[in-house]
Amino acid sequence: MGSSYRAPLDDMRFVLYDVLGAEALFVKHGFNDATRDVVDAILQEGARFTETVLAPLNEIGDRVGCVYDKTTGDVRTPPGFREAYDKFVDGGWSGLVSPVEFGGQGMPHLAGLPLKEMIDAANLAWGNFPLLSHGATEALLHHGEAWQQEAFLKPIVDGRWTGTMCLTESHCGTDLGLLKTRAQPREDGSYEITGTKIFITAGEHDFTENIVHLVLARLPDAPAGSKGISLFIVPKMRVDRDGAMGERNAVRCGALEHKMGIHGSATCVINFDGAQGYLIGAPNKGLLAMFTMMNTARLAVGLQGLGISDRAYQNAVRYARERLQMRSLSGAKYPEKPADPIIVHPDVRRMLLTCKALIEGGRVLGYHAASLVDIAHHAKDEDERKHADVLLGFLTPIVKACLTEWGVECTYHALQCFGGHGYIAEHGMEQLARDARITTLYEGTTGIQALDLMGRKVMQQQAAGLQVFLGMIEAFCNDHANDAALAEFVEPLRAKSSEWQALTMQIGQRAVGDADEVGAAAYDYLFYSGYVALAYWWARSVAAAEASSHSADFKAAKRETARFFFTRLLPRTSAHAQAIASGVGPLMAMSAERFGD
Amino acid sequence: MGSSYRAPLDDMRFVLYDVLGAEALFVKHGFNDATRDVVDAILQEGARFTETVLAPLNEIGDRVGCVYDKTTGDVRTPPGFREAYDKFVDGGWSGLVSPVEFGGQGMPHLAGLPLKEMIDAANLAWGNFPLLSHGATEALLHHGEAWQQEAFLKPIVDGRWTGTMCLTESHCGTDLGLLKTRAQPREDGSYEITGTKIFITAGEHDFTENIVHLVLARLPDAPAGSKGISLFIVPKMRVDRDGAMGERNAVRCGALEHKMGIHGSATCVINFDGAQGYLIGAPNKGLLAMFTMMNTARLAVGLQGLGISDRAYQNAVRYARERLQMRSLSGAKYPEKPADPIIVHPDVRRMLLTCKALIEGGRVLGYHAASLVDIAHHAKDEDERKHADVLLGFLTPIVKACLTEWGVECTYHALQCFGGHGYIAEHGMEQLARDARITTLYEGTTGIQALDLMGRKVMQQQAAGLQVFLGMIEAFCNDHANDAALAEFVEPLRAKSSEWQALTMQIGQRAVGDADEVGAAAYDYLFYSGYVALAYWWARSVAAAEASSHSADFKAAKRETARFFFTRLLPRTSAHAQAIASGVGPLMAMSAERFGD
Repeated sequence: MGSSYRAPLDDMRFVLYDVLGAEALFVKHGFNDATRDVVDAILQEGARFTETVLAPLNEIGDRVGCVYDKTTGDVRTPPGFREAYDKFVDGGWSGLVSPVEFGGQGMPHLAGLPLKEMIDAANLAWGNFPLLSHGATEALLHHGEAWQQEAFLKPIVDGRWTGTMCLTESHCGTDLGLLKTRAQPREDGSYEITGTKIFITAGEHDFTENIVHLVLARLPDAPAGSKGISLFIVPKMRVDRDGAMGERNAVRCGALEHKMGIHGSATCVINFDGAQGYLIGAPNKGLLAMFTMMNTARLAVGLQGLGISDRAYQNAVRYARERLQMRSLSGAKYPEKPADPIIVHPDVRRMLLTCKALIEGGRVLGYHAASLVDIAHHAKDEDERKHADVLLGFLTPIVKACLTEWGVECTYHALQCFGGHGYIAEHGMEQLARDARITTLYEGTTGIQALDLMGRKVMQQQAAGLQVFLGMIEAFCNDHANDAALAEFVEPLRAKSSEWQALTMQIGQRAVGDADEVGAAAYDYLFYSGYVALAYWWARSVAAAEASSHSADFKAAKRETARFFFTRLLPRTSAHAQAIASGVGPLMAMSAERFGD
Repeated sequence: MGSSYRAPLDDMRFVLYDVLGAEALFVKHGFNDATRDVVDAILQEGARFTETVLAPLNEIGDRVGCVYDKTTGDVRTPPGFREAYDKFVDGGWSGLVSPVEFGGQGMPHLAGLPLKEMIDAANLAWGNFPLLSHGATEALLHHGEAWQQEAFLKPIVDGRWTGTMCLTESHCGTDLGLLKTRAQPREDGSYEITGTKIFITAGEHDFTENIVHLVLARLPDAPAGSKGISLFIVPKMRVDRDGAMGERNAVRCGALEHKMGIHGSATCVINFDGAQGYLIGAPNKGLLAMFTMMNTARLAVGLQGLGISDRAYQNAVRYARERLQMRSLSGAKYPEKPADPIIVHPDVRRMLLTCKALIEGGRVLGYHAASLVDIAHHAKDEDERKHADVLLGFLTPIVKACLTEWGVECTYHALQCFGGHGYIAEHGMEQLARDARITTLYEGTTGIQALDLMGRKVMQQQAAGLQVFLGMIEAFCNDHANDAALAEFVEPLRAKSSEWQALTMQIGQRAVGDADEVGAAAYDYLFYSGYVALAYWWARSVAAAEASSHSADFKAAKRETARFFFTRLLPRTSAHAQAIASGVGPLMAMSAERFGD
């Protein structure tokens, strides 16, 4: 049986047009082709592709997984995965948001996001293949020389080749300064790359004839640590400067990891054994180039959490409406049936509404961040670009960490709604829970996101992004100061917004005395921020729904979900605020030995 | 590699002797054989057995799982499981807490609990086989006729046979009133049982020559619903009234479920096709008899959450001490190493200390409940027995739900400490997370525990158990009112204790107007209760440690962990209290249709 998926087009359109004003946004920033008709066609076709092609492959992808051939080093993807990729390429999806000059369709990032969410919901494991190509695209676009873009970027944009990001080694993940892979210059200007990378998503597969690895390595004279890392293009099949594909490069998949989930995604050990590579960007500036890719990749992983939550939720709602068990405590609601459907029980509703509030609110949070990518790159006004970039930097770790942790939470609740049946593979819910679990780990764990937010975006940048966001909240609250119908949301939002600012200052002051205060507050600060950001977007969603032409049911559902969010989920900020207030002391007092044997 | 396990004997002894005063307790209630020497020998031998025999089988149990033979209906358990069971029986463990008159060793429940925890930590899947025997033992002990106890109880106590509990059918789990399995009387006084049960743990296996199923079914003239359910003994091999084992009964395993985890535990579909069975207990009173088993089973599942948390935590601590990654924000702590071990980072400590606080606090909570089982059954004074029984009833859903949800949380944090490596099967952490996930589902989901607490133990019983517990808190706070060293714990504990009482009254008053208020508050009330109960036990643990002869390091670790609990985890009660205060409205407003397509 497995779980099924239906793209939530109504809500996607609501977020794009009614909440974020995408139509005006696209016009303003010069995306003249991204008319409402075109974007609607993307949504419709995207829904068809993901619902009918990708979603049905989700279960077999989990059951069969990727298979490694020890003799050849080849990787066979699950049945149907390759054909689905061919359809993806034939449909022109691979270059949707890439620039026209490299063969893309030049759509705004925001217009591509619903497709991304649908892919993640339909088949998270499969989605990792195009996702990694997108990361490589970004790096080549921003740091590649002209010939590199011709030779490598174009085939990736048109889907003939795919890309990877090769960062991690067995002894270093977060701490890339420790990495050991070496790059030896050759006389012809290319490099010989030697080393072993692990956890390489889409590192080997049978989709395409070539794979373009973007590899972090050290030049012979490189300074130690993170300032001595350079980025290299290392294709699986050698490629000349004129773009001609040659013989096999000394790149080989050494093994596939056995994982908790996303079995259909190839997580490879990749051995570079004196492989030919090309330097991309400046020597020893590889980490910087990598960060370009990483920021969009982090938003993308956040979207994975959102997509998988929505699939889990949809199936839980269906089950809760069908499964008959016990009577409502306040009297039978369906006396003609042998028992009431479990959706009558308040605690089942608590779980479902938690998902609904986190998913729909999270959708606005994530899509808004994507709109900032477009503005940061395409706004005509430089101040506007900077403004967007600063806010995007602030929101990126929040989107990544919150949407993925909420993804773990939502798949948890959705499974729980099934009772014991949720634990059985047949219903597909346990796969969603296992698949979701990777998202809080890769592209920087939740703890790393929290440190990025607190250390870099708040401390180093004097909370510039927060100030922009607080300004948005204040403007909204002022606009609706006399709107009685919104008062139940506007008032607590205003209060939380002040508290947010006060907490930020409190941590900043403490950190002057002890740098560990930053790390001690980071996690709770990030989630505090995430819930307040969601409160803002929920309040705006209610206002946007009221002002829209959506049905009375749609409007009522927004208001009821917002009310649930404000009364049942926003209170979590109290626990986070208290944890922040307690400071570093209770965390650091214990010696490493006293943690146990 | 997998994960490893070392039994936490020091802390177990601390809980038994220093916090709960087990020595005096055992003497008082007539367990004269349970001397400190004997209990210590149980701990030592239990540690040896679980660490060296069970723990190493945990990984292969997951990888190979139980295998079903379609032709014969047999189930083959994973390699080594059967031999481990033989050792368990040879060691005399199967009857440890069973009465001497049926071949048991008559140890108090509390003295058996550490072994139970060790088994769950070492190998949760394997532990389900003896666990289900224990459930059957309880039912036969309290409801079986003399010949039934002779014929069925004794072989289970001595481990020659095992037992099961056959409740669930595909259309009913929680709502047993819907069950359809039929029992037809035969002329010889036995019954013919016909029906299909699902999710039968240990329903079929190769450990023993016979399996005693305790089966809920309906007599021909039974009233509809839950008042028409009777309990039957249905052995796999037929057994005469004189205890002689005969030919195969019409009982057959129809399939094994494919599950998210506990692959080594056989979760069976069991078909009864006119199988010979014997009525146990009164006709139509089967649910009552089943509840006898279920209460201890619920405590036992709570212990599973505790055990698996501890194993996960132990491995995470080890990894956090070994894994070198990044420098401490407050300056290098191990400058001679290429990077600091990750245990220096506040956020890693946050995760580890959360586990430590929930595990060690949870251990006292769970062991205390077990001590109430002994008192409720063995105290000489009737009032004392009643008192213990009421408190036990109140605490059982808290222990079950909290320890299992914390088990999910702790395995989550522990995996997270490993970063991406946690997601890889090799380290064994992902297995623990998958295995832990079942515990919040079986023996009544968390939502069902919450309803049991709120509806039955608070509303129906006028919170009698809560009053006993509040009395214990008050006595402790009064005893330490002038103890400056404990003030940081006693004061917030007193405040939370008042709030707990006030919240209980608030819900009670609301429920008069709308019965759904009970369901709406239940989940948050249960966790509110769990955290306050833990605050009490942490405060008492600090006091008990101070008064004990443990090392200065041990005392310091208790105090530091308690401080972490009070400042970082107890604040979660604020969020729960606010959610409770918001009442039923935000949960029930939305029509079933508006949840989505």
